[in-house]
Amino acid sequence: MTVILDGKGFALKIEEELREKILSLPSKPKLAVVIVGDNPASQIYVKNKQLAAKRVGIDSITIELPKDTSDINLLNQIEILNRDETIDAILVQLPLPDHINKSSVLQAISPIKDVDGFSPYNLGLLFSGSEPVSLPCTPKGIIKLLKHYNIPLEGRNAVVIGRSLIVGKPMALLLQRENATVTLAHSKTQNLRDITKKADIIVCAVGKPHLIDSSYISGNPVIIDVGINRVEGKITGDVDFDGVKDMTSYITPVPKGIGPITIAMLLENTYELYNFHQKIRAQYGDLR
Amino acid sequence: MTVILDGKGFALKIEEELREKILSLPSKPKLAVVIVGDNPASQIYVKNKQLAAKRVGIDSITIELPKDTSDINLLNQIEILNRDETIDAILVQLPLPDHINKSSVLQAISPIKDVDGFSPYNLGLLFSGSEPVSLPCTPKGIIKLLKHYNIPLEGRNAVVIGRSLIVGKPMALLLQRENATVTLAHSKTQNLRDITKKADIIVCAVGKPHLIDSSYISGNPVIIDVGINRVEGKITGDVDFDGVKDMTSYITPVPKGIGPITIAMLLENTYELYNFHQKIRAQYGDLR
Repeated sequence: MTVILDGKGFALKIEEELREKILSLPSKPKLAVVIVGDNPASQIYVKNKQLAAKRVGIDSITIELPKDTSDINLLNQIEILNRDETIDAILVQLPLPDHINKSSVLQAISPIKDVDGFSPYNLGLLFSGSEPVSLPCTPKGIIKLLKHYNIPLEGRNAVVIGRSLIVGKPMALLLQRENATVTLAHSKTQNLRDITKKADIIVCAVGKPHLIDSSYISGNPVIIDVGINRVEGKITGDVDFDGVKDMTSYITPVPKGIGPITIAMLLENTYELYNFHQKIRAQYGDLR
Repeated sequence: MTVILDGKGFALKIEEELREKILSLPSKPKLAVVIVGDNPASQIYVKNKQLAAKRVGIDSITIELPKDTSDINLLNQIEILNRDETIDAILVQLPLPDHINKSSVLQAISPIKDVDGFSPYNLGLLFSGSEPVSLPCTPKGIIKLLKHYNIPLEGRNAVVIGRSLIVGKPMALLLQRENATVTLAHSKTQNLRDITKKADIIVCAVGKPHLIDSSYISGNPVIIDVGINRVEGKITGDVDFDGVKDMTSYITPVPKGIGPITIAMLLENTYELYNFHQKIRAQYGDLR
């Protein structure tokens, strides 16, 4: 019997709990979203994040910059947000236009406002086994979902397909932290089927519709599909859901799988940054 | 035919080249080594590092602190070295006594003097795909050795056994950066033999003598043995060298394998930090 992992339902539960907790705060947490250019997918994501923030009582502002914004302009904008005591969390929507140095932008975000956990300092803490200020939203949410369904991770063979900074690489680290044996596969991997067929857990985060079909699956694995692809106007994942569903023990759908959980984690991280800042203020008066 | 990878010879070649380059510098690079307590193995390592530094013309100083040194005392000492314009590179010899918070110590080292590349900022840059100020010495040296012998990495299946901050985890990242498909195995891994038997490259960094014997090997892999174990007064690796040698295409011995290369990389990193600091000074006057 295959269990369809209800990402949407789990995200709603997290949101509901957050809403309660935020109601009891002395003030509202505040998220700043920076978006550069007019990529339609990014605009939809930002809008969904803002709507979600509103649902749980988080204030949000959006800084929209034209697509030909200079690096310096963007960095200055981030620095203003870093110094603004009313802002708890800063999110720079990715991808950025090609002319912008993504690495320097992620470095510019103050680690204590880095709601995505993508600044080098936070990634370094995560990598070195310390607790970062924020964990990257998608991998954090996937671990929570797996635990919510009591899916064991220790000693299991996990394959993460795709090595992005946003999902693949931090996902591999978080699974390893849970004592899974993790293989990180990517575009240069040979004989991917040999690897996926031996896996107990497969996380696919590539962005290619129907990359994983039944020929990749053996032994009833758990499948987490992080892909969000638009095919003929419909949203679909990286996995051929209908073709593999009955060969798995657990599988996430797309949509209503990992997408809503990622947003719920963004809200949770914003809430956690707010609490962290309150503690810093109680001790030092302000954030600097 | 098995090729024994001559780590010692390769390290000597690197040292010779470094010695030439350092001779032509306007001043000598300077390394500060901090050692806490009287762990005999650590004292030997530190001594070997100092001797190697001397061979290539790097000045070094050692700060010896008693084993009951407080965190604050150690952090203060690091801060003095951070601010000392004559110091190019800071190395805190690991392991530290149990009462010391290793994470806060590694965080305290200025990223621009972090010769081991273990500070969260440098690890975060490495993890996110940017170039850190320094790469961790042992994994950096292993990649150099593999390339020196023209051993292909792209698309090969690599297994790294052991997930330490010093070797295992950065090794997995560096192999991935070379487009290998990497599996990170550790103490909770089940059926390790199934994984190593499918590997093209095996890096073992656990610290257990003869952990890997012929039952783990199939298909003539490349074996890199990072273990340094003392057994009945003799130094031995994690691999049963005599038992597996003829089943491999390439293998490192212990001693005279990865150990000397690690020290050569420490010297190279010190030299690179010196050059980096010269550039900063040319632009800004000093390092601050």
